[in-house]
Amino acid sequence: MSPDSLNQQLDFILELDKLKAIQRKARIKCDDNRYENSAEHSWHIALTAQLLADYAEEPIDIQRVTTMLLIHDVVEIDAGDTFAFDNEGLAEQEEKEQIAADRLFGLLPAEQAKEYRTLWQEFEDAETTDGRFAKAIDRILPLLQNMRNNGGSWAEHTVSRAQVINRNQYLEGLAPKLWEFAVEQIDLATANGWLKG
Amino acid sequence: MSPDSLNQQLDFILELDKLKAIQRKARIKCDDNRYENSAEHSWHIALTAQLLADYAEEPIDIQRVTTMLLIHDVVEIDAGDTFAFDNEGLAEQEEKEQIAADRLFGLLPAEQAKEYRTLWQEFEDAETTDGRFAKAIDRILPLLQNMRNNGGSWAEHTVSRAQVINRNQYLEGLAPKLWEFAVEQIDLATANGWLKG
Repeated sequence: MSPDSLNQQLDFILELDKLKAIQRKARIKCDDNRYENSAEHSWHIALTAQLLADYAEEPIDIQRVTTMLLIHDVVEIDAGDTFAFDNEGLAEQEEKEQIAADRLFGLLPAEQAKEYRTLWQEFEDAETTDGRFAKAIDRILPLLQNMRNNGGSWAEHTVSRAQVINRNQYLEGLAPKLWEFAVEQIDLATANGWLKG
Repeated sequence: MSPDSLNQQLDFILELDKLKAIQRKARIKCDDNRYENSAEHSWHIALTAQLLADYAEEPIDIQRVTTMLLIHDVVEIDAGDTFAFDNEGLAEQEEKEQIAADRLFGLLPAEQAKEYRTLWQEFEDAETTDGRFAKAIDRILPLLQNMRNNGGSWAEHTVSRAQVINRNQYLEGLAPKLWEFAVEQIDLATANGWLKG
């Protein structure tokens, strides 16, 4: 590592601060019901992945999964957050995120930039086992949070049972016990009127 | 893993939400200069450790270091945050944190509770190479943030050069290039009047 590398890494590390200003649609009940930001969300799911790693029934590399989850939202620094169920917004968002990934990971020294950019893309594609597990964890945590908050962002934005089932499908096969749990919760949310049937 | 294990893990994961309401002394300039919370701080240092892992000149297990950093502040859910340079508060804080660690990690299934409790203690003790590297990273990030914020919490609370040198000493020997950088920054902060000489 050259002295220049260190400066590039520190620039990236300081740039990361901006993710703390990106608001999601979920609310933090225990903190005046304010909106959650993408930095604290990233912490929460990275730790959740570690705690639930043993439920994966295919071999996963939890170190790679953790790094994916730590960086998965970094692109929102430039591209902002789009609500998970806003299908129209999501297509445009994807393009913005690719440009953001080029700029942000490009702040790092070349080799590290490539490594992190590739890992971020693996999360986005969710085709490898590690990528699918990371994506599944990113999606099960909002489910837990909404269940605790009387439907939370589902109820606020009139989301349907089918949409949530579809979002959590990564668990099926890969982590059957978590999938079974998710379906039970989704059914309960539907019965409670928090999700459209 | 029994069905009970999953419920215990989910209870712990939901309890973690409370760390998002624990305020530190550092401020987030890009988000209305509000105080940083311990959850987003934990995300930031976990990722910082991964980015700077190659500077460690002794072998470290970055997976263990990352987990330590993800959980290192969890005890603040019960014990609150104490300012790093409040020496009187720190002695009392240590006792509160031990009790908090028992309760919080105790929410997990027994085996996992023991694993996480032990790893948290290893971070606190900062005697192993992994523990020292994790501690060093937890301390170099506030230095970067204060340098960018015209002295930040150092200037607000009249901290001295010797105190900051002492806090960052974990880097010496273990990551000489980062140590050299830290000392340069501390000298610059002292010259700028952000730290007492």
